[in-house]
Amino acid sequence: MTKDDFIFGRNAVTEALTAGRSINKIFLAEGTRDNSVKKILDLARAAGVVFEFVSRSKLDKISEGARHQGVIAQAAAVQFATLEEIFALAEEKKEPPFIILLDELEDPHNFGAILRTADAVGAHGVIIPKRRSAPLNSTVAKTSAGAVEYVKVAQVTNVAQTLKIFRDMNLKIVGSDMDGDKNFSDADLTGGIVLIIGSEGKGMRRLTRENCDLLVKIPMVGKINSLNASVAGAVLMYEIFRRRNLS
Amino acid sequence: MTKDDFIFGRNAVTEALTAGRSINKIFLAEGTRDNSVKKILDLARAAGVVFEFVSRSKLDKISEGARHQGVIAQAAAVQFATLEEIFALAEEKKEPPFIILLDELEDPHNFGAILRTADAVGAHGVIIPKRRSAPLNSTVAKTSAGAVEYVKVAQVTNVAQTLKIFRDMNLKIVGSDMDGDKNFSDADLTGGIVLIIGSEGKGMRRLTRENCDLLVKIPMVGKINSLNASVAGAVLMYEIFRRRNLS
Repeated sequence: MTKDDFIFGRNAVTEALTAGRSINKIFLAEGTRDNSVKKILDLARAAGVVFEFVSRSKLDKISEGARHQGVIAQAAAVQFATLEEIFALAEEKKEPPFIILLDELEDPHNFGAILRTADAVGAHGVIIPKRRSAPLNSTVAKTSAGAVEYVKVAQVTNVAQTLKIFRDMNLKIVGSDMDGDKNFSDADLTGGIVLIIGSEGKGMRRLTRENCDLLVKIPMVGKINSLNASVAGAVLMYEIFRRRNLS
Repeated sequence: MTKDDFIFGRNAVTEALTAGRSINKIFLAEGTRDNSVKKILDLARAAGVVFEFVSRSKLDKISEGARHQGVIAQAAAVQFATLEEIFALAEEKKEPPFIILLDELEDPHNFGAILRTADAVGAHGVIIPKRRSAPLNSTVAKTSAGAVEYVKVAQVTNVAQTLKIFRDMNLKIVGSDMDGDKNFSDADLTGGIVLIIGSEGKGMRRLTRENCDLLVKIPMVGKINSLNASVAGAVLMYEIFRRRNLS
């Protein structure tokens, strides 16, 4: 059992239970009896999940110092989705596909925040490369506020090849770039879209960039010429959402 | 000297030097000689800042485990701005004030990401309450990618009172709320604005909320009914930016 198989925090554990994720056991801090813990106990009983009250120091030991708010669930590893399942979801919802592709994003906080936003805007799935990605671990789960339980995440071996397949499917590959041709608010962000979010330090890789149909720019007027990856992703995701739902 | 007086990482240290921040000394990992380190050495020499090459284990000890990329600067504590300085900046730029107020935001990663976005959209300043805010520390500085050096941050003792003064100045106090009356994209976000970003768990406090002129909603269609605080802030900041610059 590795650290990655533990879920920390009340929201994350509640979401994991609500989503029916396979949980082996829940550890709770002795003496906590407030409403959110009560809800977790109710959900655990309903789902037939074993729970145990233990000392805070034991919880601290399990979490290796990460914040747990007195609640830790020991869970089966996250199941990845397939690309087919992502497209099936879009079809089922009768929507043009809306897919996020993370190109070597490494920070689990960014990964988690992006999953949370992807859930909020109704994206059908998130794709990550098998190598050099942030692992789908407990930090991601916690930062995602539970969205990791709902958003389909698929792994691919070769991003450039995957993008070529997507282009053949007439999806629009959209990347964000300081030197993009158009401001995001002027670009045509309608139809089936694959939105690429690059790595924190280096942005998109060259091959990924060359496979984009459209490079959009997020204008910046300050001294720092880049945004946090999850922030840039959110601004673009909400722009796509707006074209789909708000106009 | 506390941990908060150290700046970790190449970008953050480069920005601190570029911005002319008062730095006592720079520690670099022995044997690093690449371009970004060379640039830091050039900037340090130009600014008359002392530097020293030390072992990686010494850097690890200073950073207490935080990522430092082989570069740590020992700096004077961050200087807070005054409200007057924030308004003077807006006046100087001949723009209606654009101010971000963080209502008990506690996560330094969110604080840093918000500073970075505030810089990007040209906000004139960020206001935090003196109590129960994330400290303006090295994690904030690093997550802000150096924006902490450029964005004016002011502290206030009483948020509700400050908001009343802002209303008397005819600034529009805008809060974000799941039950807001209007979608952010339909709301009137023109003119002088104070945008409030609530705490990660609890959102805005009641008194803060009661002082809002406008509650806007960020629509969400997924299973999780909230966004990361820095993400929600960024979506709203870019909407305000759009009204100012892109239409």
